[in-house]
Amino acid sequence: TTAPNPPLPFKEPLDWVSRTRYCGELTPEDVGKRVRLCGWVARHRVHGGLTFLNLRDHTGIVQVTTLPHEYPDAHSIVNDLRLEYVVAVEGVVRSRPSDSVNKKMKTGFIEVAAEHVQVLNVVRSKLPFLVTTADDAKDSAKEEIRLRYRCLDLRRQEMNYNIYLRHKVVKLIRRYLEDVHGFVEIETPILSRSTPEGARDYLVPSRVQKADDTFSVMVFVLAKRLPGTFYALPQSPQLFKQMLMVSGFDKYYQIARCFRDEDLRADRQPEFTQLDIELAFTPLEDMLKLNEDLIRKVFLEIKGIQLPNPFPRLTYAEAMSRYGSDRPDTRFNLELNDVSDVFVESSFRIFADTLESGGIIKALRVPSGAKSYSNTALKKGDIFNEAIKSGAKGLPFLKVLDNGEVEGIAALASSLDPTKKEQLLTQCSAGPGDLILFAVGHPASVSKTLDRLRVFVAHELGLVDHSKHSILWVTEFPMFEWNDAEQRLEALHHPFTAPNPEDMEDLSSARALAYDMVYNGVEIGGGSLRIYKREVQQKVLEIVGISLEQAEAKFGYLLEALDMGAPPHVDTFSVAGGIAYGLDRLVMLLAGTNSIRDVIAFPKTTTAQCVLTKTPSEVDPQQLKELSIQTK
Amino acid sequence: TTAPNPPLPFKEPLDWVSRTRYCGELTPEDVGKRVRLCGWVARHRVHGGLTFLNLRDHTGIVQVTTLPHEYPDAHSIVNDLRLEYVVAVEGVVRSRPSDSVNKKMKTGFIEVAAEHVQVLNVVRSKLPFLVTTADDAKDSAKEEIRLRYRCLDLRRQEMNYNIYLRHKVVKLIRRYLEDVHGFVEIETPILSRSTPEGARDYLVPSRVQKADDTFSVMVFVLAKRLPGTFYALPQSPQLFKQMLMVSGFDKYYQIARCFRDEDLRADRQPEFTQLDIELAFTPLEDMLKLNEDLIRKVFLEIKGIQLPNPFPRLTYAEAMSRYGSDRPDTRFNLELNDVSDVFVESSFRIFADTLESGGIIKALRVPSGAKSYSNTALKKGDIFNEAIKSGAKGLPFLKVLDNGEVEGIAALASSLDPTKKEQLLTQCSAGPGDLILFAVGHPASVSKTLDRLRVFVAHELGLVDHSKHSILWVTEFPMFEWNDAEQRLEALHHPFTAPNPEDMEDLSSARALAYDMVYNGVEIGGGSLRIYKREVQQKVLEIVGISLEQAEAKFGYLLEALDMGAPPHVDTFSVAGGIAYGLDRLVMLLAGTNSIRDVIAFPKTTTAQCVLTKTPSEVDPQQLKELSIQTK
Repeated sequence: TTAPNPPLPFKEPLDWVSRTRYCGELTPEDVGKRVRLCGWVARHRVHGGLTFLNLRDHTGIVQVTTLPHEYPDAHSIVNDLRLEYVVAVEGVVRSRPSDSVNKKMKTGFIEVAAEHVQVLNVVRSKLPFLVTTADDAKDSAKEEIRLRYRCLDLRRQEMNYNIYLRHKVVKLIRRYLEDVHGFVEIETPILSRSTPEGARDYLVPSRVQKADDTFSVMVFVLAKRLPGTFYALPQSPQLFKQMLMVSGFDKYYQIARCFRDEDLRADRQPEFTQLDIELAFTPLEDMLKLNEDLIRKVFLEIKGIQLPNPFPRLTYAEAMSRYGSDRPDTRFNLELNDVSDVFVESSFRIFADTLESGGIIKALRVPSGAKSYSNTALKKGDIFNEAIKSGAKGLPFLKVLDNGEVEGIAALASSLDPTKKEQLLTQCSAGPGDLILFAVGHPASVSKTLDRLRVFVAHELGLVDHSKHSILWVTEFPMFEWNDAEQRLEALHHPFTAPNPEDMEDLSSARALAYDMVYNGVEIGGGSLRIYKREVQQKVLEIVGISLEQAEAKFGYLLEALDMGAPPHVDTFSVAGGIAYGLDRLVMLLAGTNSIRDVIAFPKTTTAQCVLTKTPSEVDPQQLKELSIQTK
Repeated sequence: TTAPNPPLPFKEPLDWVSRTRYCGELTPEDVGKRVRLCGWVARHRVHGGLTFLNLRDHTGIVQVTTLPHEYPDAHSIVNDLRLEYVVAVEGVVRSRPSDSVNKKMKTGFIEVAAEHVQVLNVVRSKLPFLVTTADDAKDSAKEEIRLRYRCLDLRRQEMNYNIYLRHKVVKLIRRYLEDVHGFVEIETPILSRSTPEGARDYLVPSRVQKADDTFSVMVFVLAKRLPGTFYALPQSPQLFKQMLMVSGFDKYYQIARCFRDEDLRADRQPEFTQLDIELAFTPLEDMLKLNEDLIRKVFLEIKGIQLPNPFPRLTYAEAMSRYGSDRPDTRFNLELNDVSDVFVESSFRIFADTLESGGIIKALRVPSGAKSYSNTALKKGDIFNEAIKSGAKGLPFLKVLDNGEVEGIAALASSLDPTKKEQLLTQCSAGPGDLILFAVGHPASVSKTLDRLRVFVAHELGLVDHSKHSILWVTEFPMFEWNDAEQRLEALHHPFTAPNPEDMEDLSSARALAYDMVYNGVEIGGGSLRIYKREVQQKVLEIVGISLEQAEAKFGYLLEALDMGAPPHVDTFSVAGGIAYGLDRLVMLLAGTNSIRDVIAFPKTTTAQCVLTKTPSEVDPQQLKELSIQTK
C-alpha cells in the first residue's frame, strides 16, 4: 500500500461546486454546451501530442480531450492523471472528428474539451486489477480477487448494470403491488424465533436481561429461562405474515431478508432476499393471476420479453412423469416415457428384477443422439458420469440403427424380441439415429437420473431454444415427502400449507394447495394456501413428527391465532395464502448472469464468508463473556 | 382455549367468490348499490327485533342490518354471530333512518342490508380483550396483553392506522429519493462484521465450514481461524455505504434494519429501522437542502404541517450554551444564562468554590414560576428530584418578589448585594414573580441538569406551544467526547466522521463536519461528511484508542479503499457524506404516539423479548453442538 507515485498537489477549491451533468448521458444534442462532470479516470492515453481521457461515473463513460494551447493547465493536469483517479472536469461538448467516432460507445460521437480539471482524490495503492479491462474480459480477474476488492469490482460496467437492474426490478415490483393492488409493506422481525422450515437456523445468543417491572408478570415468567436463550434469524417471514392476515392486513408484501445456515451450493447465499406476498379474501385464481401479471410486467418492462397469458400449468404428478422434475425446463421437449411394461419378465435381469421389486423403468429418447454419443462416452464418458452423479448404478442405453435394429448394451438389446422392440420404439417415438437412455429403480431415483440427463443432453446438443421462455406453474404438490435419512415424512413446502380438501381422508398422502412458479427450469417463486383450522394444523404437525406439546411451545401463538378469527374459509374458494420469490435469483436470471453473487453488492462466498470484510471473524472474549457462551 | 360455543356449521361455497368493496370506503354515493364485503364482527347487538352488526376490515367499519322477513336466512346467521367472527356479507347499501345516523363515523350515514351472509371462520377462544372497546379506551388492555395477543391488537383502529401510516411514510420517502433525485437502493449485509460504533453488537456464531476449492487461496487462509468465529449484526450500514461511494454509486439509500444490544430504554428496540442515505459529488448545502426538502415533504403530505424553509441551524456550542442540550426543543423559550461572573468571590461558598475549581454557574429563569413552585416542592418535591436524577447535588433557587427582592435558599439570597442582585436579574431577564433555578459544576453536568429541568418545567407549566413545530439542524459537533468510565476520548458520532479542515492542528479538540436534525427536542436524523484520506482516518482511530494494527484487522478494507479513489475532496466543498434517520422514531412522532412499539408490527419489549413468540428461547442442544458453542 505504498504510493506508486507521489500524490498530486491538491488545488484550491473549485469556483463551481456542483456537477451539471453525468458522463454517460451526454449526446450529440449537447454539442456546444458547457458541462461540469465528476468521475473516475477509466482510460488514459497520450496520442499525437494530445491526451485523451475517458471519464466514468455511474451512468457511463465519456471521452475528455485537452486543448494544450488554449488551456495548458487543464492539459498538464490531465497529462499527469492515472487510472481511477477521481477528477472534476469542466469543458465544452463537441463532436468528435469523424475518424475518431466510436459507434460502439453510447457517447462515441462526442467528447468534452477540458478547460478546467481538478484532481479530487488520487490512487496510492497498486490496483489489483484494471476496472475497464476487467470489463472487457471478465475472466481476467478471478472472482476471489473481485470480491476482495469489491469497490473496484463494483465500478465495472457489468456490476454497475446489475446493481441498477436489481433496483429497477424492486422498484417496479413495489409500485405494481402498491399502486395497482393496494398492498401494504410491513416489516417483520429479524431477531426472531426458530420455526420448523427444514433448513438450519442462524442463532443469536441473548444476553441475560434483568426483569423489568414494566412487564412484570410476563417477564418474570420468561426471565427464569433467559440464560442460555437465543434468537433465530428467520428463514422466511412465514408465520409473521400469517399473523398479519389474522390481524386484518389483507394484502401484505415485504422485500424481506431471510437466512439459512446451509452447506452452500453455488447459487445459494446464507442471507438472501425474498419478495414475500400474502393475501386474504382473494379467490385463488385472482391471486395466481395477480402473480402472473406481476411477473409478466417485470419481464416485459425490464427485458422486453412477452411471457404467455395465462401461464401454462402442470400438476406435480404430470411434471414428474413427463420430465422427472418439479421444475421442468420446457424450452426443449425431450419427454420421459414409462416403458416398464416392455420389460415385464424380460431376460435382462436388472430390468426384470427392478420391476419385480416394485421399481419402474423409464426411457429418455435423444433425437439423432446415436451419432452424438459414442458407445465409449456412454459407457465411461461425461454423460455416464452424469448418470452416476445422480445416484444411478449405470447408464443402460440403446441406439436405433438405420435399419431399425437396436444396439448398445448387448444383453439389453438381445433381450428384446421384435415385438417388444417395436413396442419400445413406439412408446418412445424413437426412430433410426435416435439414442434411448434408461433409468431403473424407485420412481424418485429414476426421475432424478433422467431429469439430470435430460438437462445435460439438451445443453450439450444445443437443443435449448434460447429465444423461447419457459414459464409455468407446477401445482398439486404432495403435502409430504419421505426423508430417508430421518426415516420420517417431512413437509414438501412447509407444515403450514393447506391440504387439498378432497384429500382429507388420508392426510399423509394428500396433495397440497401449493404452487411453484418455474422459469426456464428454475423455481423463481413458491407459495400455498395456509391451514386456517387448528385441528388440521395439529394433525399436519403430528405427521411431520411435531407433537402437540412441541407445537404449543414453539408456535402456540399461531395455533391460538387460528382460534381468534383467521381469515378465511378455503371452502369458499377464497384464499388466505401467498407466495415468496427468490429475488436474488430472479434478478440473476433477468441480468443474464450465472452467479447470484453478481447481483448482490456485498455477497458471501460459497463458504459463507465475506472476503472483503473478512467475516466471520474472531471476537473479543469479553463479548462472549457478556453473552455467557464459550466456544469449544 | 376450549370453545365457548359450538362452532357454527360451515355453509356451502358462496356463489360469488370475490368481494367488491371495502367496508370503510362506502359513502352515501353508494346508496342503492349491491356490495360484497368481507371482514370481522366488530360489534353485534339485537335491538327491537332487528340485529345490527358492525363489520370491520382494514379500511374501517360499516354497519350491517338485516331484513328478517325478506332474508330470514341472513337474519338468522347474523343473529348467531359473535365478536371477531370472520364473515362475508352480500347486500344493498341504503341510507340510515335519520334517527340512527352517526355523524362521528365515516360511514355513519349508510348501512348495508344483508341478503346473504356466510361465516368464514369462527372464534373459539375466549378473547383476552375486545378489539373495538380497546380502541375506545386504549388503556383497558395492558400493553403486555396487547403484545401477547398482537393479532387482536393489530385489528384495533389505532394500530391499523399506525401501520398504514408507516407504510405511507416509507413510500413517500422512497419515491421522493428515487423520482426526484435518482437515488438507488442497495441492500447491504445483515450477517456482517463488528464495527467500532459504540454500542454492543449482536453476534451470530458461524458453523465451522470446510475450505472450498473454488476459493482455495483465500479460504485456506481464513479457514484456519474459522472455529470460534462470529458474524455481527450491523449497528448501521456505515462502512458499506462508504464502500458504495468508493464504488461509484453516487446517491445511495436504504431502508435498513440495524441492531444494538443495549440495555434498553423505553423508546429503543434491539432491532430498528434506519433510513440510510449517502451521496458523493454533492455540495454540502445541496445535501442539507435535499434532506430538508424530504422532511418538509413528509410532514406536509402526511400531517399537513408546514415546516420552515430553510431549517434554522444552531451550532453545538450555541445549543449547549442556550439550552444545555444538543437536541433542544425550541417550542418554548426558557434559555439558560451563564451567571458565573455574578458569583466571583461570592460569600455563598458552594458557588464560589465551584468557580475557583474551574466550574460554572448557570441559571434557568422560569417566568411566573415563583407561585407555581412552593419552596417545599423546590426543596424536596418532583422538581427537586428531577435535579437529583440529573446528577446534581441539590437545587439552588431564588424567587423574585413583587418588590424586586429575592428569596429562596437563604444563604444564596443573602450573598447578593443590591448590585449583584441587579446584575443577576438583568442577565436572566428576571422580574417579579419569576423563579430562577441554578446548576453549578462542570459545564457538562450543569447542562445536563438544566436541560432536564428546562424540559420538565416547560411540560409541567404548559409552556410548550403544541401548535408550533420546532425543527432545526445542530452543527459543528466536537469530534470527540470524554468517556469518563473508560478514561479515553470516544467519537461523538462515529470515527469515520470528517474533522473540520480548519481544526486539523489539534484533532482531539476539532469540530466535526457533522449535523443532526432535531424535531421537538428529539433527534430524528444525524449524519456527517466522511474522512476520505487514509492518514486522517488513521489519526482519528488512534485518538479513540484503535491502533493501526487493530484498524487493519477490523476494517483494513476501508483504509485500502481510501487509497483506491475515494470521492471526493472536501476542500472542494463537495461532499461524500450522508445521514441516517431513525425511521421508527420519525413515524412515532408523526403518529402522535408515545411508544415506538406502537408503530412496529411485532416489537420487542424493553427487555428485548417478543412476548408473542416467546423469543428469545432455548434451543436444541444439537444446534449448539453444530455451532461448537456452549452456554454457561
